[in-house]
Amino acid sequence: MQIYKAPVKDMRFQLEAFGYDQVQKLEPFASYDLDTVEALLQGAASFATDVLLPINRSGDEEGLKWEPETGAVTTPKGFKEAYGKMVENGFVGICGPEEFGGAGAPTVVGVCMSEMWTAGCKSLSMCPGLTTGLVEALVAHATQEQKETYLPKLVTGEWGGTMCLTEPQAGTDLGILRTKAVPFEDHYKVTGSKIWITFAEQDFTDNIVHFVLGRLPDAPAGIKGISAFVVPKKTLDAKNNGVICSGLEHKMGIHASPTCAVEFEDSEGWLIGEPHKGMRSMFTMMNGARLFVGMEGVALSEIAYQTALEFAKERRQSRSLDPAKRDKEAAADCILVHPDVRRLLLNVRSTTEGMRGLGTWAALQLDLAHHHSDEKVREEADDLMGLLTPVIKSYFTDRGFLNISDAMQVCGGAGYITDWSIEQYLRDERIAPIYEGTNHVQALDLVGRKLPRHGGRALQVFGKNVAMLIQRCAAEEKMAEFTEPLGKSLEMVMGVTAELAGKGMADPEEAAAVASNYLDLFALTALAYSWTVQAEHAMKNAGPLSDTKVKLARYFFASILPEQRSLAKIIRAGKQHIMAFDVEEL
Amino acid sequence: MQIYKAPVKDMRFQLEAFGYDQVQKLEPFASYDLDTVEALLQGAASFATDVLLPINRSGDEEGLKWEPETGAVTTPKGFKEAYGKMVENGFVGICGPEEFGGAGAPTVVGVCMSEMWTAGCKSLSMCPGLTTGLVEALVAHATQEQKETYLPKLVTGEWGGTMCLTEPQAGTDLGILRTKAVPFEDHYKVTGSKIWITFAEQDFTDNIVHFVLGRLPDAPAGIKGISAFVVPKKTLDAKNNGVICSGLEHKMGIHASPTCAVEFEDSEGWLIGEPHKGMRSMFTMMNGARLFVGMEGVALSEIAYQTALEFAKERRQSRSLDPAKRDKEAAADCILVHPDVRRLLLNVRSTTEGMRGLGTWAALQLDLAHHHSDEKVREEADDLMGLLTPVIKSYFTDRGFLNISDAMQVCGGAGYITDWSIEQYLRDERIAPIYEGTNHVQALDLVGRKLPRHGGRALQVFGKNVAMLIQRCAAEEKMAEFTEPLGKSLEMVMGVTAELAGKGMADPEEAAAVASNYLDLFALTALAYSWTVQAEHAMKNAGPLSDTKVKLARYFFASILPEQRSLAKIIRAGKQHIMAFDVEEL
Repeated sequence: MQIYKAPVKDMRFQLEAFGYDQVQKLEPFASYDLDTVEALLQGAASFATDVLLPINRSGDEEGLKWEPETGAVTTPKGFKEAYGKMVENGFVGICGPEEFGGAGAPTVVGVCMSEMWTAGCKSLSMCPGLTTGLVEALVAHATQEQKETYLPKLVTGEWGGTMCLTEPQAGTDLGILRTKAVPFEDHYKVTGSKIWITFAEQDFTDNIVHFVLGRLPDAPAGIKGISAFVVPKKTLDAKNNGVICSGLEHKMGIHASPTCAVEFEDSEGWLIGEPHKGMRSMFTMMNGARLFVGMEGVALSEIAYQTALEFAKERRQSRSLDPAKRDKEAAADCILVHPDVRRLLLNVRSTTEGMRGLGTWAALQLDLAHHHSDEKVREEADDLMGLLTPVIKSYFTDRGFLNISDAMQVCGGAGYITDWSIEQYLRDERIAPIYEGTNHVQALDLVGRKLPRHGGRALQVFGKNVAMLIQRCAAEEKMAEFTEPLGKSLEMVMGVTAELAGKGMADPEEAAAVASNYLDLFALTALAYSWTVQAEHAMKNAGPLSDTKVKLARYFFASILPEQRSLAKIIRAGKQHIMAFDVEEL
Repeated sequence: MQIYKAPVKDMRFQLEAFGYDQVQKLEPFASYDLDTVEALLQGAASFATDVLLPINRSGDEEGLKWEPETGAVTTPKGFKEAYGKMVENGFVGICGPEEFGGAGAPTVVGVCMSEMWTAGCKSLSMCPGLTTGLVEALVAHATQEQKETYLPKLVTGEWGGTMCLTEPQAGTDLGILRTKAVPFEDHYKVTGSKIWITFAEQDFTDNIVHFVLGRLPDAPAGIKGISAFVVPKKTLDAKNNGVICSGLEHKMGIHASPTCAVEFEDSEGWLIGEPHKGMRSMFTMMNGARLFVGMEGVALSEIAYQTALEFAKERRQSRSLDPAKRDKEAAADCILVHPDVRRLLLNVRSTTEGMRGLGTWAALQLDLAHHHSDEKVREEADDLMGLLTPVIKSYFTDRGFLNISDAMQVCGGAGYITDWSIEQYLRDERIAPIYEGTNHVQALDLVGRKLPRHGGRALQVFGKNVAMLIQRCAAEEKMAEFTEPLGKSLEMVMGVTAELAGKGMADPEEAAAVASNYLDLFALTALAYSWTVQAEHAMKNAGPLSDTKVKLARYFFASILPEQRSLAKIIRAGKQHIMAFDVEEL
């Protein structure tokens, strides 16, 4: 049983609350007014529920087939057809550049659509996700000729794209990767072994274009000697290019998403960007991808919430503690009367909608950063986006995991058996804190890069937004229950940040030891911002959702935000008790 | 790859630290001195590593076969033989009564052994666990004739035992169960449908004795009309008794542990205890079982920790932030240099050993409560055990889940694939917060029953133990870093308890809404007690483990105990923000 009603209404609410009007004013998005966007989202929603959801569970159970002799991968029944419809509907290219066949929609639209597809079938939706990442890297770094060669097929999804970074000895530490590229005619021949490459082989598309990190013969050691290449599975004259999938991983979840070992043997490749500057192209791919991965936590929280709610509505066990709520016609009451069932459900929903708001805000910044005419606006949007990206990737995926577990708990034994699929969502979600840079890598990015950059400018921009919101709400007495704790929460983050900057300057291990906890601390303030924005919008725009939104905000402030108190204490304890152990003692 | 070195040394440390000498002084345990116990544990450890571990992964992959026509269940390759060896070695009956073929060892020995078997193969070890529960119920409530009929075979494990409580409409709420028992000759005929019955069918033993809850014809409605019966699969003249396994659940984990639907049709059954008093026998089974289930969280935390540590020792990625720790011979450093890898590992280890200590203490109380000659000692031990049981079942299983997830994160992608088995531990563990009474049922038991009983006597006994420990340590300056925060932590719990008692008296929903958070708050103080005891013992007994124990205690106080700050705030917020939603708003 899979239950999912796509949250298009909430998405529209978030777009309005977080200022979609600013994006719609941008010249390239003139035709994307909110009603148009809602209609697009509705189309994506139908696709998620009618096409993707029906193959999600069967895909998990059937899994993938791999042919050792040819390296061919067969996806589960119905996947190829579903992907084909995705291409047909123009979904893969929804945000792609119009000159290469895309629809040129704002990124925020793509983020919303992707959330629904992930809920419908995470395994399948990873494929267009990767292709989109490659498109972004090529748009930013490829030559015009390269763009003309690859983009028309990639933008539409007729070809697939991948991201070949990891090698057996080089995961988080790409500096030690060994794949080699030697000059050949006007391009290169690439040789090396990559592992954990998502959709490096599939039966969806005629060709697959691999984005490969490797080293040129004259490359300096380490991260500064890495170059980026595109290596198609088949060359343009349709010959095999020495790329073979040499095996699939057996995983806890995402059973229908091939995680491939790939061998490149003298495969023809073309340099993207400058020699030894491959990390730039990689980060272009990664940064967008991290926002999308963060939203996977939201997507699976949402479907797990809806499933648990549906279960709870039907399930009767025990009596309400409040005699007035007892159903005298039945032997037991609906479990929604029980406070703890509500607590679990509200943990999930309040964080899910808080995160959706924050993700929407971040995606809007991405559109502003790319397209606004005012440089100052672009800069601030880029600062914010840079600051929020690691927070979203890490906090959303960790919270997603906890949320699905809470949803499972609502269902008791029914949550643990396969019938209700929550157990699949939990298995599918657990990879998200690991891939696209582990969550601690995100924390190091936040603490070591995003915070100190430009003298701490990004955090100031964030603080300014919070202050503006508090000021804007000052006249509305009813908002004080949110703006006061939001203000205190920001103060706490600012204080902890200043202390951490001092300690980290003197000893980088001090910063690294608490970076993950710091990221969570920051995320909670960002979510408090998200809920204050939503409460403000709800109060200003009376509607059926408004009361509920205010109640959800209240729940968040009472039951989730207080986690900051513990985090602040743990952060202030520093590294001493962590680093005190000899290796032999561990 | 499965990695496990049984923690016999730590078990001995815990036994010494928590006062095993008190138990050994008891008359029935005179022959169980610590060296004898350690030798027994060593035997159980070898069994876990040599017999159980090798079939754990293959059992998960192969799963169970069910024959629809006969209801027969076939367990995976090697399971029947392993169970046979368990019986042969006398492991099933290790704590069973000597008069019926058991070895009469203290419960605490059984708890330690069971932890190791659970780590070796959770699926298989659930079978003797249930049989042991049935033995306890029969010892406490059966007639001499019934004991003589069933115990000789059950104690040794030649027959299996089950616990048939849940029905499709009645899980947490047993009051609405429908299974019927009608008088027949000198006993009864039982008819009804049970679900989620662990090991209700298997190919290990010739016969299976079911403990079944049902209603007599004259039974009052609700929980006060439930009677308990034993219903053997085959009657004593070896005839089929109308018990059939009508299907197996498909689950997230414990794939080798049959979770059965069972039909009883005019099955001959014998009343255990008095008519309509079946819940008493059930609680006898359940209370012991809850301690064992709590320890499942410890067992799988331990094996996940060891696996992650082994992975981390081999894995090299990136450079230490401290130049002095860099290995100049290699391109990257062992990931154990990275503070966050240590943080994750120490989260797991500090809670695992803290929980093992607390579980040991609780198990010792069980032995004292049953066997001490002084009534006052028995009473206090029973109070403590009653108080700690729901805390152990709930907190240990929730923390176990988080711990395995942290261990997975240490391994990155390798943690998510099946090769290192951590993903199996995560799947296998996730049922523990659900079965044997969901974790919220535990919290209600704590808040609604264990705290108020006898005017709050149990909490006073707990407080007295903490105060005695603090007093004992007062002379030792080095202990102040633990005893001071322990004292504050106890004060916080006492304060919150008093507030909650007041609010809960006026409105039971107030107590229920925060019961789960309160249980966690209490658990953290109990773990602080556990670590203070361990630190004290380590300081008094210099040994290779001593320094490490003190460091682990320090880690717990700096990084885990502060979670109380958030919990206290959330608890004090009460029910208002949780209960404010109409059902339609959820």
